[in-house]
Amino acid sequence: MASLLRAAATLGLFPRRGYCSRGAQGELSKGFVEALKAVVGSSHVSTAAAHREQHGHDESMHRCQPPDVVVWPQNVEQVSRLAALCYSQGLPIIPFGTGTGLEGGVCAVQGGVCINLTHMDRILKLNPEDFSVVVEPGVTRKALNTYLRDSGLWFPVDPGADASLCGMVATGASGTNAVRYGTMRDNVLNLEVVLPGGRLLHTAGLGRHFRSGLWPETHRLMAGHLPSVSPGSRKSAAGYNLTGLFVGSEGTLGLITAATLRLHPVPEATVAATCAFPSVQAAVDTTVHILQAAVPVARIEFLDEVMMDACNRHSQLNCPVAPTLFLEFHGSEQALAEQIQRAEEIAGHNGASLFSWAKEAEERRRLWAARHSAWYAALALRPGCKGYSTDVCVPISRLPEILVQTKEDLKASGLTGTIVGHVGDGNFHCILLVDPEDTEEVRRVMAFGEQLGRRALALHGTCTGEHGIGLGKQQLLQEEVGAVGMETMRQLKAMLDPQGLMNPGKVL
Amino acid sequence: MASLLRAAATLGLFPRRGYCSRGAQGELSKGFVEALKAVVGSSHVSTAAAHREQHGHDESMHRCQPPDVVVWPQNVEQVSRLAALCYSQGLPIIPFGTGTGLEGGVCAVQGGVCINLTHMDRILKLNPEDFSVVVEPGVTRKALNTYLRDSGLWFPVDPGADASLCGMVATGASGTNAVRYGTMRDNVLNLEVVLPGGRLLHTAGLGRHFRSGLWPETHRLMAGHLPSVSPGSRKSAAGYNLTGLFVGSEGTLGLITAATLRLHPVPEATVAATCAFPSVQAAVDTTVHILQAAVPVARIEFLDEVMMDACNRHSQLNCPVAPTLFLEFHGSEQALAEQIQRAEEIAGHNGASLFSWAKEAEERRRLWAARHSAWYAALALRPGCKGYSTDVCVPISRLPEILVQTKEDLKASGLTGTIVGHVGDGNFHCILLVDPEDTEEVRRVMAFGEQLGRRALALHGTCTGEHGIGLGKQQLLQEEVGAVGMETMRQLKAMLDPQGLMNPGKVL
Repeated sequence: MASLLRAAATLGLFPRRGYCSRGAQGELSKGFVEALKAVVGSSHVSTAAAHREQHGHDESMHRCQPPDVVVWPQNVEQVSRLAALCYSQGLPIIPFGTGTGLEGGVCAVQGGVCINLTHMDRILKLNPEDFSVVVEPGVTRKALNTYLRDSGLWFPVDPGADASLCGMVATGASGTNAVRYGTMRDNVLNLEVVLPGGRLLHTAGLGRHFRSGLWPETHRLMAGHLPSVSPGSRKSAAGYNLTGLFVGSEGTLGLITAATLRLHPVPEATVAATCAFPSVQAAVDTTVHILQAAVPVARIEFLDEVMMDACNRHSQLNCPVAPTLFLEFHGSEQALAEQIQRAEEIAGHNGASLFSWAKEAEERRRLWAARHSAWYAALALRPGCKGYSTDVCVPISRLPEILVQTKEDLKASGLTGTIVGHVGDGNFHCILLVDPEDTEEVRRVMAFGEQLGRRALALHGTCTGEHGIGLGKQQLLQEEVGAVGMETMRQLKAMLDPQGLMNPGKVL
Repeated sequence: MASLLRAAATLGLFPRRGYCSRGAQGELSKGFVEALKAVVGSSHVSTAAAHREQHGHDESMHRCQPPDVVVWPQNVEQVSRLAALCYSQGLPIIPFGTGTGLEGGVCAVQGGVCINLTHMDRILKLNPEDFSVVVEPGVTRKALNTYLRDSGLWFPVDPGADASLCGMVATGASGTNAVRYGTMRDNVLNLEVVLPGGRLLHTAGLGRHFRSGLWPETHRLMAGHLPSVSPGSRKSAAGYNLTGLFVGSEGTLGLITAATLRLHPVPEATVAATCAFPSVQAAVDTTVHILQAAVPVARIEFLDEVMMDACNRHSQLNCPVAPTLFLEFHGSEQALAEQIQRAEEIAGHNGASLFSWAKEAEERRRLWAARHSAWYAALALRPGCKGYSTDVCVPISRLPEILVQTKEDLKASGLTGTIVGHVGDGNFHCILLVDPEDTEEVRRVMAFGEQLGRRALALHGTCTGEHGIGLGKQQLLQEEVGAVGMETMRQLKAMLDPQGLMNPGKVL
């Protein structure tokens, strides 16, 4: 099929870009914009400069590259028709959620049609006994957890921003809870995906709707029914793992229009703590020892002294300005007492000076709000500057080495930067502040990021633990996976998107 | 690339099967067997009927279909050369581990070359601080855990048989510990794969060897160095998830020649228990309630009264003949006491009559040996008969319904069968005993398995939670994933194996 499409494209059987969708100046033709309006309604299509600008960048320092047009579909049927329309006209398709990515994943490097999925924001089905929920792409992680408040369940994956859940699927996001609850890779049970040509794929099966004959795909797409993603069993060995293929594909293989996510029981009790250390090494050693002692820590986050200082100021905390761990433990009251005791013993053994416990919900909320605001706290260090958050991950034994090296590199580079990370996973960020007008500084920041990525690779790590490749890390990806890995990824892309129109210029 | 290869095959640019590798009667040519011997040494190639028979079947009732020849490579270089040789001659390649599969995954349906990987059985690198280990394909799960005995770490995935770890990767195996520690999908960090044409892919990156220039692939393959799979970071968002693509691919996409696996700390204390219930519903309700109460149960296994009776006889247990749960809890002494108390409360609330605790290691070992011997205990119910173990998985809320239906179906069918399963995952097996000479009974067994698969699909489940599709469940897979899912899987297969030579006739 892929080869047929490629062949057809070569033979000119598809209208090429500009064939009828663009005018003489490269602008979108009126006819094409009308066709988009016919699909989603004219109030859900915009070519206004402000909308295009707003959709041409994320929170990173990658420069804004606006799409030609932004559309807001209301349901999966419309997404499918939009994809088919763009594909028939050879126009790039860029999926858009909350725009909170950090590697330029939404930049419209070749222009095209930005599909903003945030109007599809229903929670379609909660299956409390099965610990699962089906959400549309516009539901954010906080909205889901607010919805779940009285269910005894929660969804733990928490990147800093209040990102959309399907955007988190697309980038393979994780966050502070991953050490205990896993990343998006571990918490997605099934996906509904609109493939580039408009067809609908259910990565882990359709559930009974398909089989009962009540809801064949064509009928469903015509009728515009609610998406139906099956609740999904906890595990499966049926055929190739298509779900895993789309998690982390960064919008380059298809549009995710619904996801079945795994939920977890709310712990009976929760305690958080901060703990200051005499050195980076001591903080990381504590992390490794806590994991080795099988203490089921729920969060274990590292902040260097610069980051701690910034958080103190930005979030009115009063922590010592030192390498610090933020920890959280989940369990029964009794289990917590034991976890806390062990963690204190291990930290004390590694020279921790101060262990400050936050047992009340409000106190904990304040602490984690501060942690989740680290990005903004760092930005406040140099008002008016942009931030660039690098993201690498190494085997945990190599963490002390790379953190110490990175702090030295930071000093040597003369750049302003903080270090913060999910050390229980070996994953950390270096947030660099940069004046976007200072091209020399921008160059130094990029060089620093690349050097850090190479350091991680040299230590058997990865150039990104959670932000993805996007625009910024394509060279590093090549170095990481090698020639055969790259060719396999290129084959996958060509197979699912033979015209190369899904979020072009990203990942590969 | 895939399309080019397909086109080349269509045009006859590849030697086709029989071109020079087979004689007039379809037998392998002497020249080809000599070529195999030149790669692995003549003592590691066999065309003896006994070897071929032994490699033509697994533990299932699928009939033996022997390969033309069996080879035992000693290292990854040889595997690569064998794959290239077979591919150039258009001969099927069938990877073979311990032959303990349950869906006919090793049957050589088109003859060809069986590659027995069990001579590659080194544990290449243990990274205790990173909780990971790199193994060659012949290392079995028990051998690994014996090796790890004094390390404070263990590998929890435990299908019944002492399967090879890379075979477990290939089938996406799981077992009794999956409810707490996940399946193979969750415990593989990196894979070294020989692709059908002989090239080497590292699914999660090469580690520094590649980048340092010390170990480029060609040099390495010529020199026959040790495989080098990077220890792997705990998480990654770098490009498409190639590791996930090969876990569960059943040998149809490539040969797995090394795997980096995730290890877990050995729990400080362990307690097991058995508990008899008045009904299937009561046992399953107990399971759901234990999970909802966030009791971190490590194992929770269901045995129906027929299975319990068979295990009592086969393994000299003395349990009541009733629907039974086998449970295990891992944690500190203190945490265990609390887990046990909660489990007893919940089970008591659901009418459990007898809770019998096994606190001593020897007692526990006996209990779990009995559980792992369930297959053989069932076989002993009808000596001389073959077993067929079906395997389905449903959302846990649908378990009572499907278990009750299945027991009624069993009664109505007149077949002998037992039910046993990993109910914490919604996964269970029905082991049917069948006289392979009685074609009518074989037909009834197959019909029963298909009906059970459809029941699981109708309840939003999957036709296989851990055994895989193999030869037996291809129709059910189609019903499960639908037309677009099947086409996507077929595209994946054609992309990586354009000639269709890797374990042909399986999965798709």
